[in-house]
Amino acid sequence: MTAHATHSDDAIADVDAYMQRLGGQAREAATQLRRCETAAKNAALLAMAARLDRARDRVLAANARDLERGRDNGLDAALLDRLALDAARLDAMIEGLHQVAALPDPVGEIDGLRARPSGIQVGQMRVPLGVIGIIYESRPNVTLEAASLCLKSGNAAILRGGSEARESNAAIAECIRDGLADGGLPAGAVQVVATTDRAAVGRLIQMPEFVDVIIPRGGKSLIERISREASVPVIKHLDGVCHVYLDATADPEKALAIAVNAKTQRYGTCNTMETLLVDAPVAEGLLPRLAAAYAEHGVELRGCERTRAILADAAPAAEADWAAEYLAPVLAVRVVDGIDAAMAHIERYSSRHTDAIVTESYTLARRFLAEVDSSSVMVNASTRFADGFEYGLGAEIGISTDRLHARGPVGLEGLTTRKYVVFGDGQVRQ
Amino acid sequence: MTAHATHSDDAIADVDAYMQRLGGQAREAATQLRRCETAAKNAALLAMAARLDRARDRVLAANARDLERGRDNGLDAALLDRLALDAARLDAMIEGLHQVAALPDPVGEIDGLRARPSGIQVGQMRVPLGVIGIIYESRPNVTLEAASLCLKSGNAAILRGGSEARESNAAIAECIRDGLADGGLPAGAVQVVATTDRAAVGRLIQMPEFVDVIIPRGGKSLIERISREASVPVIKHLDGVCHVYLDATADPEKALAIAVNAKTQRYGTCNTMETLLVDAPVAEGLLPRLAAAYAEHGVELRGCERTRAILADAAPAAEADWAAEYLAPVLAVRVVDGIDAAMAHIERYSSRHTDAIVTESYTLARRFLAEVDSSSVMVNASTRFADGFEYGLGAEIGISTDRLHARGPVGLEGLTTRKYVVFGDGQVRQ
Repeated sequence: MTAHATHSDDAIADVDAYMQRLGGQAREAATQLRRCETAAKNAALLAMAARLDRARDRVLAANARDLERGRDNGLDAALLDRLALDAARLDAMIEGLHQVAALPDPVGEIDGLRARPSGIQVGQMRVPLGVIGIIYESRPNVTLEAASLCLKSGNAAILRGGSEARESNAAIAECIRDGLADGGLPAGAVQVVATTDRAAVGRLIQMPEFVDVIIPRGGKSLIERISREASVPVIKHLDGVCHVYLDATADPEKALAIAVNAKTQRYGTCNTMETLLVDAPVAEGLLPRLAAAYAEHGVELRGCERTRAILADAAPAAEADWAAEYLAPVLAVRVVDGIDAAMAHIERYSSRHTDAIVTESYTLARRFLAEVDSSSVMVNASTRFADGFEYGLGAEIGISTDRLHARGPVGLEGLTTRKYVVFGDGQVRQ
Repeated sequence: MTAHATHSDDAIADVDAYMQRLGGQAREAATQLRRCETAAKNAALLAMAARLDRARDRVLAANARDLERGRDNGLDAALLDRLALDAARLDAMIEGLHQVAALPDPVGEIDGLRARPSGIQVGQMRVPLGVIGIIYESRPNVTLEAASLCLKSGNAAILRGGSEARESNAAIAECIRDGLADGGLPAGAVQVVATTDRAAVGRLIQMPEFVDVIIPRGGKSLIERISREASVPVIKHLDGVCHVYLDATADPEKALAIAVNAKTQRYGTCNTMETLLVDAPVAEGLLPRLAAAYAEHGVELRGCERTRAILADAAPAAEADWAAEYLAPVLAVRVVDGIDAAMAHIERYSSRHTDAIVTESYTLARRFLAEVDSSSVMVNASTRFADGFEYGLGAEIGISTDRLHARGPVGLEGLTTRKYVVFGDGQVRQ
């Protein structure tokens, strides 16, 4: 009766009732998933992979229809590229399912079991969060990625993709549903919202009785709107305004390598450096060499007055540049007086995503690590390492810029919570 | 200029501007506290204890005025008792400060530091949450308790107590402020809201730029309202509808001891058992002995039909009894058919606070621990153990019935979060 089979919105007249039904089914499935063995979850993941492999033509045909409609609607090239599937992307999606199946199951792990003076033993057991709602934009491979991570961590998922990808998502949803059935898991374990009606998002984020957490993935305006309107907790990622600070004590070769890599290895990612801070005593030595390297990559520099005194070609940086997430070959550069000025700049302008220092000083490294309040703080490494795979999480559902629950790259563990378990032998409280 | 010195609301005409000022001061103090050494925090805690010791007369006089006003306003005896301070309660408050000073500082601890194939080392460092807003009701000792736990964990606190306790809280706030000054910490580290205007609460929970998390302590209606209206994350405690299930495999003596203790050791606490589930094969053997014990304690029983077939004197339980948090000498009793029926009842009616099984079966114990979705799940122990002190947290700011961030008793660790730290040696991303 549900979501998966229909490609049409017309079938869903009453969005409220429809979302209530998805919610109820997810809640019921979550209860079963909580009790589900690792082998059963893995079997369903591998069955989804097999189903997708057999449905390649159908998924690509659906994707072609999405792309055609997208072109008709005048979507830009970057968006069409994110929307497009091909044989290689399908291979990667199938491989991704195998990788998630191979990850250790976080559920059931007990930490810190300790005997207490009363005679009880107390520990904390890792358990699923429950029902996770994921709201995302054009990339249809997110459908499978989110489904697999939620399922592996024992959660039921309700997935709401972008309307541009609706035929692709419906085709992928069919593989997910068939894979769940092959593995003997309830259809409510992963449900893809079949309507593109925006009211469905409004309901999804306002059903605390059915949904335990919302993870929005997409542009900042989508995420801000969802955070503002949600009545359930949101794990979110906002800006990545990341800094690298080159201290006077830095090894110059490390400084150059890191400052260039953090900016140029990829421009569009949230962990790309957007502002470079250079300690005054080494600015004259480092900035010209850096400028040459950035020029080779076609990176535009926007500098403070002290920077422009050294690099005459740099454009002047305006106040807005210090807060900008360019996601482009543009870099703001500021000359500062030592670590305190650098940390004051970071305290004021950083989005608290990832900030790095380059230094050979033990004391300054310790200070920067302790005092900078960002989800990742680095010494002598490129900010581009702030990533679930590079950190060894095995998977990543996103990077949280929140403070509570999960901070930084979020893997399977971030999709779980811990309950206390108590082992007694008849103990009572005195 | 601030909160601490005035006992009067009249001084604060513009609540919005006042709360903004407190928020800004807290945010600034939080930046300093993040960098604060353990010794400095402990010194301030001990200075507060010394200040309170010297201010005993002044605090008791303020409290006497609160009590007098409370009696004039017709507050009930239980509320007046919670409000009242005496020498013994002051002793306990002073002792509490010493205890918190003696606890290990959670800030700065690095977990799971591991080398990655890229050559970087990655770990997670425990850091303060930032600014914590605490909203509570009549008990003035909460002011000091909350202040000490927030400070020890490196957070700035904004405390909003009940209007019944406003003179007591103002007197305690003065000791806090003086203690902070003695220890060289900023006054913004702990601020007590000096106005009883309810608009102050409305502002406090809607200042995400200044407040990172709200912890409400008090009645369910207060907590529900705050959760609904807050635009910052809330760590909360709602009901404690706790269950004990006596399986047919239980040792009868353990079953009796736990079932009696979980109900009668204290009635008004959230971890007190409210519903007893008894497996059918042992109901006839256990229920009469239990009824006799409960009768001795004056506990009223409300049973299902099968219970009443054994205990003719028990009142009939209505549907509402299964969901009731009595906080009183009343107990709902239900005879069930085995662990599956017991867990189905718990799944439906438990507030997911604390639930226990009594059994000698290894397999049933494992199933109950894995499958019951509550913040504390116990085998052969009284639900009354669900408590930060009994669990060895050393302190407790409350018990969370939320799923995200902190679940169950919340100690110093629950007032912190973790950021990633990366140690490199010049590594760049390939």
